[in-house]
Amino acid sequence: MPLIQVDLNRSVFEDKGKGISNAIHQSLIAGLGMDPTDLFQVFRPHGEGEIIFSPTYDNRDRRDLIIIRITMVQMFSLEQKKTTYKELTKRLVDIGIRRDDILVCVVENSAENWSLGEREA
Amino acid sequence: MPLIQVDLNRSVFEDKGKGISNAIHQSLIAGLGMDPTDLFQVFRPHGEGEIIFSPTYDNRDRRDLIIIRITMVQMFSLEQKKTTYKELTKRLVDIGIRRDDILVCVVENSAENWSLGEREA
Amino acid sequence: MPLIQVDLNRSVFEDKGKGISNAIHQSLIAGLGMDPTDLFQVFRPHGEGEIIFSPTYDNRDRRDLIIIRITMVQMFSLEQKKTTYKELTKRLVDIGIRRDDILVCVVENSAENWSLGEREA
Repeated sequence: MPLIQVDLNRSVFEDKGKGISNAIHQSLIAGLGMDPTDLFQVFRPHGEGEIIFSPTYDNRDRRDLIIIRITMVQMFSLEQKKTTYKELTKRLVDIGIRRDDILVCVVENSAENWSLGEREA
Repeated sequence: MPLIQVDLNRSVFEDKGKGISNAIHQSLIAGLGMDPTDLFQVFRPHGEGEIIFSPTYDNRDRRDLIIIRITMVQMFSLEQKKTTYKELTKRLVDIGIRRDDILVCVVENSAENWSLGEREA
Repeated sequence: MPLIQVDLNRSVFEDKGKGISNAIHQSLIAGLGMDPTDLFQVFRPHGEGEIIFSPTYDNRDRRDLIIIRITMVQMFSLEQKKTTYKELTKRLVDIGIRRDDILVCVVENSAENWSLGEREA
């Protein structure tokens, strides 16, 4: 159950939200071997001035930042993560997102830190 | 100081926000032994299409997902967490939330990672 | 690449958002030795009733809570964190934020959990 949270400008969400959702989902399937039916994403469209960033940090030309946060269980290798980042960049670029506008941040926890509505509650 | 972040549809927030807030708070008191005066929650009501999820993952009938993220210090036992998840499901179901619409994700940190406004600053 | 997420009331964002952004940024530079060009912040302005908190927990007089979440690599000492919290409080108070209205929550991950758009993807 990776949980994805995406912060992006409202115009980008309206224009490309479905494509971004699909790009992220396919990248986790390709990179982490995630079950294709395991889909949990939250999009947070932002207004003017709510996403603040350096345009040049790491020698980039950043214009319209998309922040993708992934919370997932600590069980994937460095190799799997690197593959996921590459898949994600490739798929986002394919739908017209600029490479330099991507920021991915992963937070890891343990399996006991997840719960769907408890059946025996 | 567990910090709670809830992503849910705007209609659910408007209809049941106060009940959900109370259900979460009482569950942390019951399950983790949290101080009843320790209350920090953020609700993020969402518009159409912003919360994306599999309706069936884990053999559920998911219709209107509520995502509850809890950031807390790593100090609670597995037993305490399980009790909290059960309490939370029971209390949410009691106010009319469907069991299958619940997703809880806990992220743990350490005590040194929290600060209220520093008195000696 | 610390990533900053700020939840606050819309009126506070409109009145002091730029000042808060700058106060946080300068505090991370001063306290963590962060590169001044390393700036990634998301503001989430909230409507009435979305931020719920105890007014008195920890013997405070809390009125208009600002929640500052910092996700960063686990590499800073306790001393650096404490300095950062103090710098942050001082700078926020300087622009008219009440000391008791500040909550800081840090989540740490590892360097392999960050990706800017991959150049070789």
